[in-house]
Amino acid sequence: MARNHMILSAFFFNPQGDHRMSWRHPRAPGREVLGFDYYRELVQAAERARIDTIFVADHVSIWDSVKSGVAHYANARLEPLTLLSALAGVTRHIGLITTASSSYSEPYNVARLFASLDHISQGRASWNVVTSAMDEEARNFGRDGNIEHAFRYQRAAEFLDIVKGLWDSWEDEALLFDKDSGYFADPDKVHVLDHRGTHFKVRGPLNVPRPPQGHPLIVQAGSSEDGKNFATAHADAHFAIYSTREDGIKYREDINERLARHGRRPESFNILPGILPIVAASEAEARDRQDYLQTLLPDRVGIDLLSSWSGIDLSAYPPDGPLPQLPDESTFNGGRTSLNRVRQWATQNLTLREIARKLANSGSVPTVAGTPKQIADQLQDWFEAGAADGFNLMFPLLPEDWVNFAEQVVPELQRRGAFPTEYAPGTLRDRFGVARPANRFAEQRANQRAVS
Amino acid sequence: MARNHMILSAFFFNPQGDHRMSWRHPRAPGREVLGFDYYRELVQAAERARIDTIFVADHVSIWDSVKSGVAHYANARLEPLTLLSALAGVTRHIGLITTASSSYSEPYNVARLFASLDHISQGRASWNVVTSAMDEEARNFGRDGNIEHAFRYQRAAEFLDIVKGLWDSWEDEALLFDKDSGYFADPDKVHVLDHRGTHFKVRGPLNVPRPPQGHPLIVQAGSSEDGKNFATAHADAHFAIYSTREDGIKYREDINERLARHGRRPESFNILPGILPIVAASEAEARDRQDYLQTLLPDRVGIDLLSSWSGIDLSAYPPDGPLPQLPDESTFNGGRTSLNRVRQWATQNLTLREIARKLANSGSVPTVAGTPKQIADQLQDWFEAGAADGFNLMFPLLPEDWVNFAEQVVPELQRRGAFPTEYAPGTLRDRFGVARPANRFAEQRANQRAVS
Ligand SMILES: Cc1cc2nc3c(=O)[nH]c(=O)nc-3n(C[C@H](O)[C@H](O)[C@H](O)COP(=O)(O)O)c2cc1C
Ligand SMILES: Cc1cc2nc3c(=O)[nH]c(=O)nc-3n(C[C@H](O)[C@H](O)[C@H](O)COP(=O)(O)O)c2cc1C
Repeated sequence: MARNHMILSAFFFNPQGDHRMSWRHPRAPGREVLGFDYYRELVQAAERARIDTIFVADHVSIWDSVKSGVAHYANARLEPLTLLSALAGVTRHIGLITTASSSYSEPYNVARLFASLDHISQGRASWNVVTSAMDEEARNFGRDGNIEHAFRYQRAAEFLDIVKGLWDSWEDEALLFDKDSGYFADPDKVHVLDHRGTHFKVRGPLNVPRPPQGHPLIVQAGSSEDGKNFATAHADAHFAIYSTREDGIKYREDINERLARHGRRPESFNILPGILPIVAASEAEARDRQDYLQTLLPDRVGIDLLSSWSGIDLSAYPPDGPLPQLPDESTFNGGRTSLNRVRQWATQNLTLREIARKLANSGSVPTVAGTPKQIADQLQDWFEAGAADGFNLMFPLLPEDWVNFAEQVVPELQRRGAFPTEYAPGTLRDRFGVARPANRFAEQRANQRAVS
Repeated sequence: MARNHMILSAFFFNPQGDHRMSWRHPRAPGREVLGFDYYRELVQAAERARIDTIFVADHVSIWDSVKSGVAHYANARLEPLTLLSALAGVTRHIGLITTASSSYSEPYNVARLFASLDHISQGRASWNVVTSAMDEEARNFGRDGNIEHAFRYQRAAEFLDIVKGLWDSWEDEALLFDKDSGYFADPDKVHVLDHRGTHFKVRGPLNVPRPPQGHPLIVQAGSSEDGKNFATAHADAHFAIYSTREDGIKYREDINERLARHGRRPESFNILPGILPIVAASEAEARDRQDYLQTLLPDRVGIDLLSSWSGIDLSAYPPDGPLPQLPDESTFNGGRTSLNRVRQWATQNLTLREIARKLANSGSVPTVAGTPKQIADQLQDWFEAGAADGFNLMFPLLPEDWVNFAEQVVPELQRRGAFPTEYAPGTLRDRFGVARPANRFAEQRANQRAVS
């Protein structure tokens, strides 16, 4: 336990909650998910509780390779960079993490968007770098299907390197605003990148000055081999999926070894496993609430979801029978983290229907259900055992599970001294306890001066 | 005069004002241009005055092909989509226009960003479609220099067609939110685009539902032949550059002919010429203020600016001599609108230095200087003569010229009944008096039903 308190991140992809059918719940929001007020209230509730950050996931497509997707799944949503920018203007402390795809955007554009969000929010922006695993996404960007897995991660590494270089292209002291002399900037501190790589050619400099955080916090989500290697080489934080405290401790050891290969210390890297928190008066009530959500899943959607995750069309298989042989991971170009989650259940002899229901429920993310005290106990336990630096809170149903957590679990953690009662000053990086990165160009100049 | 009142749009590219050296003015903002508060106050001042819209211009590079650019020009700025999104959250009525480049972004991404901003702002988003004319921009996106002029506009037409198609991919009634039946959407009203064109292959549907405006208001800026043809074929509004009322009347006639070729009526299209408003106690004071701004322009910057605009390296030419022969427009790949502005002055026998000073001063945009009454007179005169549907207010110095206009000229126009005292309800399109576009897919379905 390197940190002295856990990090809490409030997550959503579907604005109705992370259960795939949460939108059908009687208390789920309707059309208001298309407006701003809904999100403002959600985020302000999190900020009142001093939650460190929100994390809005994103895909660049709807889910429609299967027929039920369009009809029954809550595909329509806002774009997260516009949403988080709007939220930046009405919040003061909370971190703003979102996803951008290294496969389907341009480094110069992504560098600008996050740099600008970091300025607008005074150092609260964070980029979840994803390589995009869905065929549906590829088809919106000139391709017929998904890009080969290893290639995606190579491209992502080059992409991220360019973006970091662009963020460095203005040194921290480059801006002079010297009205008398007429020097707006010191030209020695503004740098052309002139990147010429395998996938990209980008000159720079950026037209946004260096972000307050130096580099907005870099996060990576998903636990494939490539994903973990990418994260430990390039990221500051990692959203992982594991089910037990013991798995978490082993996961940390594995990650530490990978970090060491890059000369990095464990403290430079935070692991936030996903949990599915349900606050209720009792464990039984929490279970009832989960069971109720499961009844909202049309069978067809469950099977289609499983088809998407496993890469096999399962529509003709008996729902109460077993899964057929799954594709080999090493040649699978879809999401490997997801495939492996399905594989785990297959080895437990679950039926298609049973696996589908688990999937709908945020996959293999462990449910942490019970009274505020019980939930706080478990979070503290994982954190103190070194199984987690904090948690990615994947609420089944919004807004209520989110608001209940903020209003009931957080105060319980605060009473125990396990979570701060005020935001510490500084940027999101400061709150995550990771250093502001040095500027590569400033370092080069310092080295040149030392030599000459 | 088809409209019953003029449209007012408050513009900036440089957040210090449109004079190229405004940042040096003693009352210009400094570092605060990198924060949000500066813009919030600016926009709220405009909203209090019921100004219809703000327009934030954008380039995807700094200006550094010439040496003085980095040192003396205010290159560093925020990215406008993040900025306007943040402003959407703290305003209620004012329109939010910004630029995105059809040459250096992906249609799916641009469609999402503007659709989402339109939802967040409840129908106030507008996209200024540009093709990007600078070599510096091309070099940030894998190219060695600018793309050929006609090619850029062909690509832009295809790009915009895709974006409009994506905005239509969810029909207005596609979303059901039907919790009982489990139908989130009506699959018959969600459409794959399956665009396969010369420049792009994009499947769709978008993952953002149809924007409140149907399509965010489309604007185009710049008066090259290609630009005017593009605008009259595809846009709802046009930011033009002309100097006199008579030119404006002729300009409108020319535009009406072009519109007619596309079967469009003049009322479907608003022309907003740029003006440079300076509110002062007298004309003499206004002139003094302009002259003072000119003293802030280092000679070197003026000549470099002129080199950029004319596509000729002028650094070795005598500043008090004439311009050399200018490039031929028909083969010029840079900004042709700019080149033509330079050509006009060259024929007036101005020296390099004189042209440079004019350029620094927002180019050939006419200055409208004087007391609030005098300015209101001139705007009313142009508007009533049919020389303009409204004005793009390109203030030399921010925030003061902006605030002075909002607090002094607008009330004068309102007293005369020439400008409304309240925002009319509805979207930005409603305020511009242009129809909400029909949905191409809904029309196709209606036609099919009619046939079968
Ligand atoms: C908590 C969490 C959040 C994620 N968010 C996103 C996301 O926003 N967008 C996305 O495309 N993938 C997201 N993923 C998926 C992974 O980032 C990764 O792209 C996916 O697993 C495919 O890559 P892989 O084959 O390396 O696992 C998320 C995964 C986890 C565990
Ligand atoms: C009021 C006004 C605003 C403009 N804003 C932008 C802008 O934000 N970004 C841009 O690249 N060009 C902008 N331009 C330039 C034109 O849109 C156009 O791209 C440029 O003139 C080059 O194209 P052309 O050769 O067809 O003139 C603007 C022009 C005018 C008159």
